[in-house]
Amino acid sequence: MSFSDQTRSPQAPARNDLPVSVRALGTQARAAARTLRSLPTSHKVAALHAIATGLRANAHTILAANAQDVQAAAEAGLPAPMLARLRLDAQALEGIASDVEAVSRLPDPVGETTPAQTQPSGVRVHTRRVPLGVLGVIYESRPNVTVDVAALALMSGNAVILRGGKETVRSNAALEDVIHAALRGQNLPAHAVQVIRDPARERMLELLKLDDLVDAIIPRGGAGLHRFCVENATVPVIVGGIGVVHVYLDPSFTRDPEDRARALEIVRNAKVQKPSACNALDTLLIHERALDALPGIARDLQAHGVTLRTDPAAHAALSAAGITTDAATDADYGTEFLALTASVKTVPSFEDALDFIAAHGNHTDVILTRDDAQARRFVEDVDSAAVIVNASPRFNDGGQLGLGAEVAISTQKLHARGPMGLRELTTTKWVVEGNGEVRE
Amino acid sequence: MSFSDQTRSPQAPARNDLPVSVRALGTQARAAARTLRSLPTSHKVAALHAIATGLRANAHTILAANAQDVQAAAEAGLPAPMLARLRLDAQALEGIASDVEAVSRLPDPVGETTPAQTQPSGVRVHTRRVPLGVLGVIYESRPNVTVDVAALALMSGNAVILRGGKETVRSNAALEDVIHAALRGQNLPAHAVQVIRDPARERMLELLKLDDLVDAIIPRGGAGLHRFCVENATVPVIVGGIGVVHVYLDPSFTRDPEDRARALEIVRNAKVQKPSACNALDTLLIHERALDALPGIARDLQAHGVTLRTDPAAHAALSAAGITTDAATDADYGTEFLALTASVKTVPSFEDALDFIAAHGNHTDVILTRDDAQARRFVEDVDSAAVIVNASPRFNDGGQLGLGAEVAISTQKLHARGPMGLRELTTTKWVVEGNGEVRE
Repeated sequence: MSFSDQTRSPQAPARNDLPVSVRALGTQARAAARTLRSLPTSHKVAALHAIATGLRANAHTILAANAQDVQAAAEAGLPAPMLARLRLDAQALEGIASDVEAVSRLPDPVGETTPAQTQPSGVRVHTRRVPLGVLGVIYESRPNVTVDVAALALMSGNAVILRGGKETVRSNAALEDVIHAALRGQNLPAHAVQVIRDPARERMLELLKLDDLVDAIIPRGGAGLHRFCVENATVPVIVGGIGVVHVYLDPSFTRDPEDRARALEIVRNAKVQKPSACNALDTLLIHERALDALPGIARDLQAHGVTLRTDPAAHAALSAAGITTDAATDADYGTEFLALTASVKTVPSFEDALDFIAAHGNHTDVILTRDDAQARRFVEDVDSAAVIVNASPRFNDGGQLGLGAEVAISTQKLHARGPMGLRELTTTKWVVEGNGEVRE
Repeated sequence: MSFSDQTRSPQAPARNDLPVSVRALGTQARAAARTLRSLPTSHKVAALHAIATGLRANAHTILAANAQDVQAAAEAGLPAPMLARLRLDAQALEGIASDVEAVSRLPDPVGETTPAQTQPSGVRVHTRRVPLGVLGVIYESRPNVTVDVAALALMSGNAVILRGGKETVRSNAALEDVIHAALRGQNLPAHAVQVIRDPARERMLELLKLDDLVDAIIPRGGAGLHRFCVENATVPVIVGGIGVVHVYLDPSFTRDPEDRARALEIVRNAKVQKPSACNALDTLLIHERALDALPGIARDLQAHGVTLRTDPAAHAALSAAGITTDAATDADYGTEFLALTASVKTVPSFEDALDFIAAHGNHTDVILTRDDAQARRFVEDVDSAAVIVNASPRFNDGGQLGLGAEVAISTQKLHARGPMGLRELTTTKWVVEGNGEVRE
């Protein structure tokens, strides 16, 4: 089997000249995946370098296609924040190219093996880490995701079918052309990375149901996109979506003035640094004996533009200090705000904080405490993707946890939990070596 | 939080006296899961021992309920093989009890941690292995699965909701009563193991869509059940179902008379030992230069009652040796027979065997060869859950691979691949420990 069996030559007509069904993309991706899964790391690194070089060399073409997307979206009335996410400039494109190079420097998990164990039957058994195969990634209007996901997929030996937002069709087509040329230049199948160029929702549905050809669907976007995938896919989906973040402030972390200052900084960092992130603070849980630290925190948050929604006890403590806040309703707890809003809940005990988190948490939960036994119990009891002691919830991030790069953040428990790096794009297979053994 | 908050006292009315919605079961399971996830291993072991003791002490009641199920099923015209799978006797029940004790001796994966790594920000990061939470297991008419799955779920710290076949309602109710009494006797929440007693299909659908309360659905049964789950579930499903098994016989394994005898034994073991198993042979791939070994193998298989469906080259080789076989059609390849039937396909080269497996394989594939480089290439290229060199495909089994026990066999790539033991019923969470760090 040579690579050329699985790809067209550079002279062949470009795929986008022909209507190609999503099923055909899947078949092509599966053929490409067979080549990718045995590639040495050095070949994958070379491919990523070729893509980075191609992005720089074709910057003019890519930015021109992107400008057309931006203009069309502006004319269609896309809101300014979405236009900003869609827009590329020379600096952003350089950032994308150097991110591809950064992915090429990550350790390659493919090929790792567990120690062989001889079983009573005499056969020797080990597992070997292998790529998942074919990924389907569905995302919204940011064209950088196209390249970012392609790089992570290739480095982990996977083929990928990308379905971006309809506003980015021209940008993604230009990026796909550059990636294809780079892959062909490295004698690799161009079908390793394919973009669904038809923005119709039916095409996305076809991808979600391609379970004989696609091994995993990874949505990147809001809770609505994740829900749509879960409800319609027959391919296994790695869901993210809603992530509620709590910070519990224990009285033991408010006695020392330095701790008090740290608590204020952590809460500010949690809420203000990037309010649109899934690991930003949603609900501050405060022990009733720590309420004297709340006015300082609330004043600081309000100074940073945060709207606070408080329960009666917190409201009273803040009123007494001359601070006005909104009254929280039930809907303000267990809610991901993704904005400069936070709810505050007073709890009469640490155990009540645990119960509250058990009812509302799943993503990232922080305890601020000087009581080590309490911290251990928090880590033990809280069943969230990340449990954090005495630091900001914003550390629940692939880069910050040492993964190097992340393709998505999982809020489910199967397969991957929290940030997904290269390793989470792989699986294992069993290898059994015998000498004629049969089963008794 | 004491255990008694989460369970009713032994004096309370039994749950089966009341109609309980599947959602209510889910809520109860989630509360129980919170207790289970922090249980020390010794407490889980004690619970399993109490269940085994309860099964033995209540054998009379269980067998009486089972006899009612068998009688009702016989009157309803259930075929004999299904009646056999449904029927329990004293010996089978003792086997079930000692299997529970065997599970209690397996290593507990919960609580394992990875080494803490200090990140550039200063926070220390590790992961900790934790139970999945709440499992939903859907199976057919074998009541032993009820106890088997309950034991594996408890030992891995999970709560489980069981939905067995409608023919086993009385058996499962009796088993659930015994399990509940054992759990209460150990001061554990009875809701850790719950059986959906209403056999209506709507209840199963409710379970499949309970994604806010159930962490994973594990179907155990035929391809139809798996398909039903995949198409209807919003809870992540671990699919098994169709598993096609190939054995490739290379000429290098037919030159030595001892190898020839080994090949015959492996093929016989692969097909005849347990034809209904998912790891039984479906298609024998034979190199055209190994065809002289085929008559001996075919004669042996036919003597064991196997029907062979052969391609023209194999058919001719066998005819010349006076052996009659059926002609294979395309549908005989990539088909799981689950019966004493196998297809034979002649390939002109090893590469063609790899291509054939790439098109039709996914479960267990065997190579019989004396060429080490070829064996390595087979292990590298074949993308199946288990790749086996010079041994029977029947070794793709939890017990044989050293897992101790298996809850199901996954044919998908996400989360678990191949036999699933206790470890595959767990996930990880991130633990971050800091000293006031915030994200820059």
